[in-house]
Amino acid sequence: MYHSDTICAIATSMNSSGIGIIRVSGEESIAIVDSIFRGKNKLADCDSHTIQYGHIVSNDEIIDEVLIMLMKAPRSYTTEDTIEIDCHGGVLILKKVLSLLIESGARIAEPGEFTKRAFLNGRIDLSEAESVMDLISSNSELAMKNSIKQLSGSLNKIIVDLRDKILYETAYIESALDDPEHYDLTDYPEELRVKVNDMLERVNDLINSFNSGHILKEGINTLILGKPNAGKSSLLNTLSRRERAIVTDIPGTTRDTLEEQITINGVSLNIIDTAGIRETDDIVEKIGVDKALDSIDDADLILFVIDSSRPLDENDEFIIDKIIDKKVIILLNKSDLVSKISEEEIYNKYNKPVISFSSVSLDGLKALESKITDMFFSGQVKSDDTLYITNSRQAGCLTNAKNSLSNVLNSIDNMMPEDFFSIDLMDAYNFLGEITGETIDDDLANKIFLEFCMGK
Amino acid sequence: MYHSDTICAIATSMNSSGIGIIRVSGEESIAIVDSIFRGKNKLADCDSHTIQYGHIVSNDEIIDEVLIMLMKAPRSYTTEDTIEIDCHGGVLILKKVLSLLIESGARIAEPGEFTKRAFLNGRIDLSEAESVMDLISSNSELAMKNSIKQLSGSLNKIIVDLRDKILYETAYIESALDDPEHYDLTDYPEELRVKVNDMLERVNDLINSFNSGHILKEGINTLILGKPNAGKSSLLNTLSRRERAIVTDIPGTTRDTLEEQITINGVSLNIIDTAGIRETDDIVEKIGVDKALDSIDDADLILFVIDSSRPLDENDEFIIDKIIDKKVIILLNKSDLVSKISEEEIYNKYNKPVISFSSVSLDGLKALESKITDMFFSGQVKSDDTLYITNSRQAGCLTNAKNSLSNVLNSIDNMMPEDFFSIDLMDAYNFLGEITGETIDDDLANKIFLEFCMGK
Repeated sequence: MYHSDTICAIATSMNSSGIGIIRVSGEESIAIVDSIFRGKNKLADCDSHTIQYGHIVSNDEIIDEVLIMLMKAPRSYTTEDTIEIDCHGGVLILKKVLSLLIESGARIAEPGEFTKRAFLNGRIDLSEAESVMDLISSNSELAMKNSIKQLSGSLNKIIVDLRDKILYETAYIESALDDPEHYDLTDYPEELRVKVNDMLERVNDLINSFNSGHILKEGINTLILGKPNAGKSSLLNTLSRRERAIVTDIPGTTRDTLEEQITINGVSLNIIDTAGIRETDDIVEKIGVDKALDSIDDADLILFVIDSSRPLDENDEFIIDKIIDKKVIILLNKSDLVSKISEEEIYNKYNKPVISFSSVSLDGLKALESKITDMFFSGQVKSDDTLYITNSRQAGCLTNAKNSLSNVLNSIDNMMPEDFFSIDLMDAYNFLGEITGETIDDDLANKIFLEFCMGK
Repeated sequence: MYHSDTICAIATSMNSSGIGIIRVSGEESIAIVDSIFRGKNKLADCDSHTIQYGHIVSNDEIIDEVLIMLMKAPRSYTTEDTIEIDCHGGVLILKKVLSLLIESGARIAEPGEFTKRAFLNGRIDLSEAESVMDLISSNSELAMKNSIKQLSGSLNKIIVDLRDKILYETAYIESALDDPEHYDLTDYPEELRVKVNDMLERVNDLINSFNSGHILKEGINTLILGKPNAGKSSLLNTLSRRERAIVTDIPGTTRDTLEEQITINGVSLNIIDTAGIRETDDIVEKIGVDKALDSIDDADLILFVIDSSRPLDENDEFIIDKIIDKKVIILLNKSDLVSKISEEEIYNKYNKPVISFSSVSLDGLKALESKITDMFFSGQVKSDDTLYITNSRQAGCLTNAKNSLSNVLNSIDNMMPEDFFSIDLMDAYNFLGEITGETIDDDLANKIFLEFCMGK
């Protein structure tokens, strides 16, 4: 058990609302809250996991009417004595109660410090802690589900299993080197090669999932490009109108913050609409066009809108030339009008997926949606079995582990002595341990948790 | 007991944060939450006021890891079976859990509906319900304390006592009219006059407290006026720098929302800085000056800044002419420089309080702060005994009650028959009842609660 002082923080966001929660955790939390709480009983005498009604007081003056949620060690988020104070949700009240706690001996928690304690006290591993933050900030249903999966330990299981296997091999090598009479290493390198290849395959699967996982977490940066009047804005309207209908299923949703973000098949798209691209002498228009072209580099996906009711022109050619190396879906727009261009013609010319589309009849919308999920999740996006790595730190650890395992294969190829295998295997073991936080130094742990939000 | 369907709402604000709470209340709340919750035990089998750990699930898929706060009727905010679901605080998770509750038979609560149920079920009266909202939105410590006082029933006690006294008199009159043999009304009108005068005094005290109470709740609208270079902006800086120091005592405070609001001795001031006022031909400057002059009407207080290092000029005269009917404090600014004007001179000339002030040495700051609290709270602002009416609806009911009681006095003066007294006394009784919600129709109650926030 990690011994610790008592921390406190406002765990709900700092806006007026019905309820505001202050969280307190640490050895003195019950004594500290008892010193400012008047209820039927002293909290020290109450059972764990009970709710106590009463008042927060300061010099016998009532500050707020509250409910106290008492969770005694080790049955709490941090595994320490933890209290949640359920206040009326005014900002001023929350600040006042917080300052009373501080006067009574608690200190303000650092961002993420509650979760850090859960980690340091062994309740969750580092990958689970990171998934807590992903969960809170997730902006699509799939990202949310993936975080829940990681939070429930799916990644932890894979990593623990890999590390067990590695440890077994290093232990075998050490034993054989210590006790050559009882262990025969003659055929061992080839046996190890098979095992390491198997491990590498599993590590590679996780690394590859990061491409999708990253997009799952951050959303697909999607750029709508096309010449003027190709129908870019009506495309954005068509896509976001569908989303708006979903969002308003539940009242109280703030529409503003989702402004340019839509969800397709549970995947979030950050859509950037751009100025129509054409060669122009107008200075202001040119700035818009240059800005659109500059955005191409950062885009994960480009929706190139072509007006099928007009023949291709030099502006279309100019655009395709700029995006030929990117993931592109060509939308042959205005399919409700008489067409001047065919899907085949475009596909043969540019070798990119082409979809006939109409913002009027919504023709092609389903095809577009499937194509996007196909492109980024190989159509597996609905499957519950895939675990995606969403965290770049974790992806970095996996890449390091992969390199170490590859070094083992090199050593086998070059017929190096067995203790060389051991060194690289132990490196891989340690790199994998960084994912779950088994082998991680304090500075890094601190840095990771400081990215969390207050009160978590 | 008011019978009701089961309502649910997100009770914390819709931003990502450490914890998010969903509140459920009504007869079916336990059954509904049980249908989407997997814990060690069914909630129906758990004791009231306990905390249950588990998961929210949808078709066996885990949606979130949660704590369930179970409060069975009648020991809850609404007096109904109430559950608070303590989720990881992501917006998407909260929306997902909310939609599961709705699918399982709950409906989205209207704003204020939880508090409305507390009122309809008799747990709190209307004045207490209104103080809940005042408490949440209070932006100064005194406003907060006053709301707490109202929430704990101080106003209710006064009103109930007044109504009891009125009811006693009407009952006495009715009895005497019914049974003249046993009751003598000869001297009664004069006895009643004494009693009604006493009631009127108490009602008037409450009405008068509304002037201060309104300012307590909304803050003092304060206008800084003065000719150019009188030192208006440095005054604003001096006042707000003090505030900023207080605000940052506690990390995590959003500075933006307090932008032009400061707190002096626990009272909130909404400070509006204005353009320097002078006669000018510059069109743009003139717009600024006109705007400053237009703000005078809405101001509760004007801080008129005079540059004491320069003689008074026609601009100063112009300004004082515009504000002579308002609450004004004259600041003889730049007291650190050689003075061209004395406090006495200004006071004799304008007959308004004058304070020598320096933004450099902070000379006069304390005097300014005391003067402001003196002006608006007769210096009583630190006293805990004064109850302020902060709600204009309640002030309106009190004024109606006052008029009815005055009518009783008129009837006595005009020697009207006793049943005239009864009619006006009953009117006063009913108007007072509207404050606590005893005599209020459904439409009005609905209107009042719709002004509440979601989840309260």
